Amino acid sequence: MSDAELRQLADELRAETISAVSQTGGHLGAGLGVVELTVALHAVFDAPRDKIIWDVSHQCYPHKILTGRRDRMRTLRQKDGLSGFTKRSESPYDPFGAAHSSTSISAALGFAVARDLGGASETGHGDAIAVIGDGAMSAGMAFEAMNNAGHLKKRMIVILNDNEMSIAPPVGALSSYLSRLYAEAPFQELKAAAKGAVSLLPGPFQEGAKRARDMLKGLAVGGTLFEELGFSYLGPIDGHDMDQLLPVLRTVQDRATGPILIHVLTKKGKGYGPAEAARDGGHATAKFDVVTGKQKKSPSNAPSYTAVFSDAILAHAAEDQRICAVTAAMPDGTGLKLFEERYPSRCFDVGIAEQHAVTFAAGLAAGGLRPFCALYSTFLQRGYDQVVHDVAIQRLPVRFAIDRAGLVGADGATHAGSYDVAFLANLPGMVVMAAADEAELVHMVATAAAHDEGPIAFRYPRGEGVGVEMPDRGVPLEIGKGRIIQEGKGVAILSFGTRLGEVRRAAEALGARGITPTIADARFAKPLDRDMILDLAARHEALITIEEGAVGGFGSHVAQLLSEEGVFDHGLKFRQMVLPDIFIDQASPEDMYRVAGLSAEDIEAKVLELLGVARISDQRA
Amino acid sequence: MSDAELRQLADELRAETISAVSQTGGHLGAGLGVVELTVALHAVFDAPRDKIIWDVSHQCYPHKILTGRRDRMRTLRQKDGLSGFTKRSESPYDPFGAAHSSTSISAALGFAVARDLGGASETGHGDAIAVIGDGAMSAGMAFEAMNNAGHLKKRMIVILNDNEMSIAPPVGALSSYLSRLYAEAPFQELKAAAKGAVSLLPGPFQEGAKRARDMLKGLAVGGTLFEELGFSYLGPIDGHDMDQLLPVLRTVQDRATGPILIHVLTKKGKGYGPAEAARDGGHATAKFDVVTGKQKKSPSNAPSYTAVFSDAILAHAAEDQRICAVTAAMPDGTGLKLFEERYPSRCFDVGIAEQHAVTFAAGLAAGGLRPFCALYSTFLQRGYDQVVHDVAIQRLPVRFAIDRAGLVGADGATHAGSYDVAFLANLPGMVVMAAADEAELVHMVATAAAHDEGPIAFRYPRGEGVGVEMPDRGVPLEIGKGRIIQEGKGVAILSFGTRLGEVRRAAEALGARGITPTIADARFAKPLDRDMILDLAARHEALITIEEGAVGGFGSHVAQLLSEEGVFDHGLKFRQMVLPDIFIDQASPEDMYRVAGLSAEDIEAKVLELLGVARISDQRA
Repeated sequence: MSDAELRQLADELRAETISAVSQTGGHLGAGLGVVELTVALHAVFDAPRDKIIWDVSHQCYPHKILTGRRDRMRTLRQKDGLSGFTKRSESPYDPFGAAHSSTSISAALGFAVARDLGGASETGHGDAIAVIGDGAMSAGMAFEAMNNAGHLKKRMIVILNDNEMSIAPPVGALSSYLSRLYAEAPFQELKAAAKGAVSLLPGPFQEGAKRARDMLKGLAVGGTLFEELGFSYLGPIDGHDMDQLLPVLRTVQDRATGPILIHVLTKKGKGYGPAEAARDGGHATAKFDVVTGKQKKSPSNAPSYTAVFSDAILAHAAEDQRICAVTAAMPDGTGLKLFEERYPSRCFDVGIAEQHAVTFAAGLAAGGLRPFCALYSTFLQRGYDQVVHDVAIQRLPVRFAIDRAGLVGADGATHAGSYDVAFLANLPGMVVMAAADEAELVHMVATAAAHDEGPIAFRYPRGEGVGVEMPDRGVPLEIGKGRIIQEGKGVAILSFGTRLGEVRRAAEALGARGITPTIADARFAKPLDRDMILDLAARHEALITIEEGAVGGFGSHVAQLLSEEGVFDHGLKFRQMVLPDIFIDQASPEDMYRVAGLSAEDIEAKVLELLGVARISDQRA
Repeated sequence: MSDAELRQLADELRAETISAVSQTGGHLGAGLGVVELTVALHAVFDAPRDKIIWDVSHQCYPHKILTGRRDRMRTLRQKDGLSGFTKRSESPYDPFGAAHSSTSISAALGFAVARDLGGASETGHGDAIAVIGDGAMSAGMAFEAMNNAGHLKKRMIVILNDNEMSIAPPVGALSSYLSRLYAEAPFQELKAAAKGAVSLLPGPFQEGAKRARDMLKGLAVGGTLFEELGFSYLGPIDGHDMDQLLPVLRTVQDRATGPILIHVLTKKGKGYGPAEAARDGGHATAKFDVVTGKQKKSPSNAPSYTAVFSDAILAHAAEDQRICAVTAAMPDGTGLKLFEERYPSRCFDVGIAEQHAVTFAAGLAAGGLRPFCALYSTFLQRGYDQVVHDVAIQRLPVRFAIDRAGLVGADGATHAGSYDVAFLANLPGMVVMAAADEAELVHMVATAAAHDEGPIAFRYPRGEGVGVEMPDRGVPLEIGKGRIIQEGKGVAILSFGTRLGEVRRAAEALGARGITPTIADARFAKPLDRDMILDLAARHEALITIEEGAVGGFGSHVAQLLSEEGVFDHGLKFRQMVLPDIFIDQASPEDMYRVAGLSAEDIEAKVLELLGVARISDQRA
């Protein structure tokens, strides 16, 4: 294609992206920001031989459209449809899947090294190209990768997609630094200079590669930080101007020897008014009307767990000046936005930096404050060692508010909050709670706010509550005490978290058959309510635990208690219902839990099986 | 004290540090490198009101001597003695404990913020000072903390203790950058200039703080990287010259407003010939003779597990060109030194950067290579999310060689490898093995080398093997198959890992009472040998699992299997012997396992209790 045709293609690609996402919902703004970059990369580089790795990959929709997936874009983020992220199993054009941030440089370096060592790749080995946002660049692992790449000096390309935005507006000194890079020279002037200079580049160079590099370097108004780390720095260039993108990429493709960073300026949501106008650049959206931009959200029946947490922490913060809050680039997602507005000096958005977030919170706690560290379950995995080493071992009163616990729906397997109970509940001194409904969450926030003795964590899922009556204010729960929801006989179901709703539904269905299970809400995976659990075991023929987590968590701790106390010695029909040993692809949370075997029907079947009423589970199998 | 007296004190402190460590063994080189810095910090700053936070804290021995712990230095790293690291519970002069690297800036920022928000501290709130090595500075979380601190602009002090050494000589672009900072100006000249300039500083400044900052800034030959991140940069200065240290620290103490980084050059092992001469600066040592420097190592009876891994991977690397290796700043500790020497292009020391190490390995695997990622269990916690997100979800053939699994002895609770089985075995598609002895380790390396289908991990402990006969070469094990060690009756003991030795000893003692337990080695925590385990359960009255890990790991997976299969329905005396729910302080590994209740005596008592032979466990309790 000619450059003019490529420009035309970019326009069509933008329209197609908007059209597709309007019908599916999903991550819109990031993709719109890289439409021209996507076209230019595919025009200049030879994917899938060249490995284009989209960091986080919120921005990969245009890439998917261009790489053979256009006809499936209307299935995006739906059950059996396209993933909302790049995914190796989906396409050879996705050499490395992503969803969590800041992994792309590490992966690209791996490909570059593998290429130079003769590693076999079905699609061949060419250039390794990481496309990473300015927000993602602030994460420690991106720095670690830059540090290593600058040392190894392999040819590889990092494209810094600088839209002054992670999901929230960016924070941190690096962000200020990047702003200065183009603030120091008037941007329009630079843009003109860049255009002029790069127009000279694609032609033959008598003087060879060095001259080309020098000329490119002349375009830069800064970039020493990256140069100090061993990268050639090139930019900033306008990421929506194909006249800048194409010649720069062609020159790099032709001439690069070692690691090179191309600084590209883009606008999140570019080319679609409603997204450009949105505070978050149209980051994520429900289905929407293309003309008006109006989102088609289904009416909510209950407040989201996130909103409930948001309100609850505000109430405690008003009474306890020690309470502060830490978020890793997600003040909106974690519900800390209101806290930030009301108590700006007590709210800390540390950027995409979960390791620092946790240890910083530990430092705040050691200094006499009472931080709530609000993270998604899946991202808390990034700070796991810090939870162990800095918080738990020192018994510091950090309160972990763990959102998006359990299966999360459209974001799929990479975002599942499957492991937090397992990796927290075996830490000495840690208190681990899960809210059964939104009212319980209010009480758990109160419990955490009152718990000065050591670390405490409470988990709650994505989405809406169940519509229970809300308490006027939270009342601290007794640590390590569960509650009986319903007395029955024969079988006891011990729930940890929001599966309680499904348990109740299962109990209703069982009631129609004359079976009344006892239902208990454990509230705590640690410390366990030993008395309640042993009593349930003693009074019932069968005991079922259920949780929204993988094996190793709540049910495993109950099993440890029961075995240690000799409960199994003389027989107990004990079952642990946990997430199965598979990564579950995106679907609605309800569908995912059906795949997981944790729906009301599954619970009902398990009870019937245990009571020998009917082998429903066999029929299902 | 006068400056002359402080110099004298430093000399005495160095002698005392050498003397103490000669009797206890421990981390010598790092402490010797900061003797003058320690004295200067305590002279200029007001600890414990001012919070001095030693990163990693290998270098804290002189600090301990100066802060009321001199008389206990001969108990260092021993049972009931002083910790080898800073520890909050040990002294108010240790405001934030450490042992893993790169946490100090995050913690110091927490203290600085807590101070400014009025947080209560028993020792008051003054300056927050992080002392961090150049190796530790390369870790992502240090960058995350710098990025956040540069943004928040609180008064805080980071002392970059640049000895050109982490444990191994440093790697990475940052290290090269630091070298350039003092290579650009002849060092001696700089030193003289610094001396001249700083001698002017402590007097009264008519022109106020700005002048002081300008003068200090004039000392710097570089440091833009830190300045771009929002820190004032000061240095480099000679960290063994009190005439430079004292006035610079006094001026900073007097004048600093925002975040400031002081770049101090030191020599690891300074002032003790044998340490200075050692490749690692005398990093860690056994007890030694002060005059000769000769270490008093007890003769070994068997090769260390680390050495066995080192040999085994070499054998496979010779046959399979795809095999490469990744270490995070520990080529010696992980046994990759020989690999690095023989295959320098295939061995990657990425620096203290576990997050990158794991994802880089994932990239290598995606690019067609077969990386062994060799990390200590406790440090793998740093790369947990990357194991989940980049390796397991993508089923990439990364082989995790997990050293220092289980309790590690003198390094204590912070270094315990307690959680890896729990946090790995519930990841779909992951294979998790533990070696029962050094011959088993050889076979497990072979198993990993042959396993191209997905990720695989094998764990092994610190220290020597048990002296078994070694195979000529490793033979891949059948995935998910255990082995019966001894057929017995009544009770079966199912061991995962090197507790097998204790199980054998327990069986000998039981044999004297006429009890012959069945003994099995599970080899795999994932996938479990279902047939073997169900058969053991069916053929015995009691089944005991034992592992060197916390609840949630091997035993929990066995419990899940047994409950799911209905084995408990009709009774089984099932017990899981796991690490207890406490952080265990340093002692010999044997003593720590006694505290943990995982010794041969504990196993014997558990068997007797289950068989109703004698209630020995009650007597012990």
